[in-house]
Amino acid sequence: MSDVHIAGVGMTKFGASPERTARDLFAQAAGEAFDDSGLDPDAVEELFYGNFMGEFAETQGHQGPLMADAASVSAPATRIESACASSGVAVRYGVNHIRSGAADVVLVGGAERMKNLSTPEGTRALSAAADALYEVKAGVTFPGAYSLMANKYFDEFGGTREDLAHVAVKNHEHAVENDLAQFNRAISVEDVLEAPTVSAPFGLYDCSPMSDGAAAAVLVSEAFAEDHGMETDVKITGVGQASDSLALQDRVSIPETPAAVEAGETAYEDAGIEPSDVDVAEVHDCFTIAEVLALESLGFYEPGEAITAARDGETAIDGELPVNLSGGLKAKGHPVGATGCAQISELTKLLRGDHVNSDAVSDAEIGLTHNAGGTVASCVVHVLEEVDA
Amino acid sequence: MSDVHIAGVGMTKFGASPERTARDLFAQAAGEAFDDSGLDPDAVEELFYGNFMGEFAETQGHQGPLMADAASVSAPATRIESACASSGVAVRYGVNHIRSGAADVVLVGGAERMKNLSTPEGTRALSAAADALYEVKAGVTFPGAYSLMANKYFDEFGGTREDLAHVAVKNHEHAVENDLAQFNRAISVEDVLEAPTVSAPFGLYDCSPMSDGAAAAVLVSEAFAEDHGMETDVKITGVGQASDSLALQDRVSIPETPAAVEAGETAYEDAGIEPSDVDVAEVHDCFTIAEVLALESLGFYEPGEAITAARDGETAIDGELPVNLSGGLKAKGHPVGATGCAQISELTKLLRGDHVNSDAVSDAEIGLTHNAGGTVASCVVHVLEEVDA
Repeated sequence: MSDVHIAGVGMTKFGASPERTARDLFAQAAGEAFDDSGLDPDAVEELFYGNFMGEFAETQGHQGPLMADAASVSAPATRIESACASSGVAVRYGVNHIRSGAADVVLVGGAERMKNLSTPEGTRALSAAADALYEVKAGVTFPGAYSLMANKYFDEFGGTREDLAHVAVKNHEHAVENDLAQFNRAISVEDVLEAPTVSAPFGLYDCSPMSDGAAAAVLVSEAFAEDHGMETDVKITGVGQASDSLALQDRVSIPETPAAVEAGETAYEDAGIEPSDVDVAEVHDCFTIAEVLALESLGFYEPGEAITAARDGETAIDGELPVNLSGGLKAKGHPVGATGCAQISELTKLLRGDHVNSDAVSDAEIGLTHNAGGTVASCVVHVLEEVDA
Repeated sequence: MSDVHIAGVGMTKFGASPERTARDLFAQAAGEAFDDSGLDPDAVEELFYGNFMGEFAETQGHQGPLMADAASVSAPATRIESACASSGVAVRYGVNHIRSGAADVVLVGGAERMKNLSTPEGTRALSAAADALYEVKAGVTFPGAYSLMANKYFDEFGGTREDLAHVAVKNHEHAVENDLAQFNRAISVEDVLEAPTVSAPFGLYDCSPMSDGAAAAVLVSEAFAEDHGMETDVKITGVGQASDSLALQDRVSIPETPAAVEAGETAYEDAGIEPSDVDVAEVHDCFTIAEVLALESLGFYEPGEAITAARDGETAIDGELPVNLSGGLKAKGHPVGATGCAQISELTKLLRGDHVNSDAVSDAEIGLTHNAGGTVASCVVHVLEEVDA
């Protein structure tokens, strides 16, 4: 498979944007990606756009053509929906489309508007990513589902609320100087432990927030980049996607995420690397336990062993494998349909040296993104590498 | 580009299925497609699944993994949403995925549940395919939007309600013996003209119905078909997709559908054929005028000339170019997320000789499907050919 180069990335600040619709947010992100790439929207041959809850937040489906208009793109344009992995899948589809030879330039991205919903409305909308018949009707919400996973993890492998708290503390610390992040303030382990309970063992700071935001990337074929003398810095060398049963009750093991294992193995094989080759990672920490499960599924830790990674500083900015230098979903924010592509945007900047935290990973050559939908019923993994590494 | 073979197709009866959810409907369609193909669900390497209004009808998003479970498939699975073109896009993505060499066997399809919604609820859900800010807030619904297109067509090119009535009469006639169609009864021009007005010039019989239903197809690479000694009868030789501005007000011309022109031209070029090579077509007649616009956009007629095609019998079962031998959306039914793949299912049967209307097109070698989203802001065209033609 030929490599696909990241010609440009763009991302709005995540947080509350009460006066801007998803189309406004995506127009900004796409515009920045075009500016970053030096390419014109006219060059785009296809748009893959991720969004999860537009029906609930804006009564708006059929967003492919709408977002093509917003981005000044005239090309086949389709909305991809895979819950919180929507724009991760959109990126993978874009990569595959270029690899197939069907196009040289694609726009990928996603947007989500959530802050205009009340907490009950937003919780209900998010629960559409779980099984409506067999989970939601039984009262499952996402904090509830992930807390089941955390409690079962504690049962099987050990671990404490304090271990999880270190994940949140680390990710907030990483976001302090990231202007695009929703939260720019450090928190302490005590803050996490003393916060109001959302669903035991999770307090408020174990949970990623509701966010508005958008992200976009312009992808080009290697041949196009060469022919046009483009000085790209980062390429996507591996992609993997996998699915699992939508409902937790149908899983063999609650505190494991085999879709992430499979997506990771596929991406590693595709890129021709091993987990140990990865220098920096952005993983889907929608809840603190989710980062732990991701690190184990991706082969960075054995099952049951990632629970102490943050506490021990191994995944901190100066650790062996810095994880979520963007702030992660926890502190950067989690406008769900934008998250997968936002990981690509942040990791691209980290690798090429123009992210606020780039200095900490100046030797990094290989990065990974892990984007999950629901309770990891969907997972997409990408491997990014420096072009001249 | 190598050809992609249709190994099997399946489709539920369209209509009202009050006791079956979308997952039940898709499980049936996929099961029939597997039986038809002789392949096991284990062979599937990816699922592309189309659905439009699951959030409104069943409060269910994230349907990729859910439908993989329903179809007993263990593979990356994603929901594609492009309004009424959702499963048409899913089919195209499946074709492109096989052509890229990434997979040899994919499952494509779609499902929709609509009849559990009241008419106001269903109308509101469908309107999410239009521009929520600039069309829906101004009162636009889909009968309204297409009636604008029809009235403008009459203004520019001429034509009458009676001309349109012949489209509905023809499509009902085609469906009389189609057991899978929602309506199995013939109607007269008088029936159409005397029906209650929905949105002038449309009466009830100018509009496709609300429907529940699902469709699926198993696609395989040519190499896989050969290696496994599969006797496939039909292959997909051309695909095309295009987008237009979502809102009607942003179009240069209201009674034309340039996305269909572009999707058609792309598909013709891909297949290496001309419009005149097409022997039989399934087009997206969500309203009677839509069939007229489709025939003109696809190059079968000049602009302004398809309005009399049905009246003159040219698109009837014994006409020069039989159109919608399945009964079309009008009489077969229109569970929107299933429609694009249902066209593929019906056309495959027509070409290979096991459709109730196959005898009428026994000499047909090349067929075309045209699947549109919204007011043709999205369009997907496929060219199907007999394998031994």
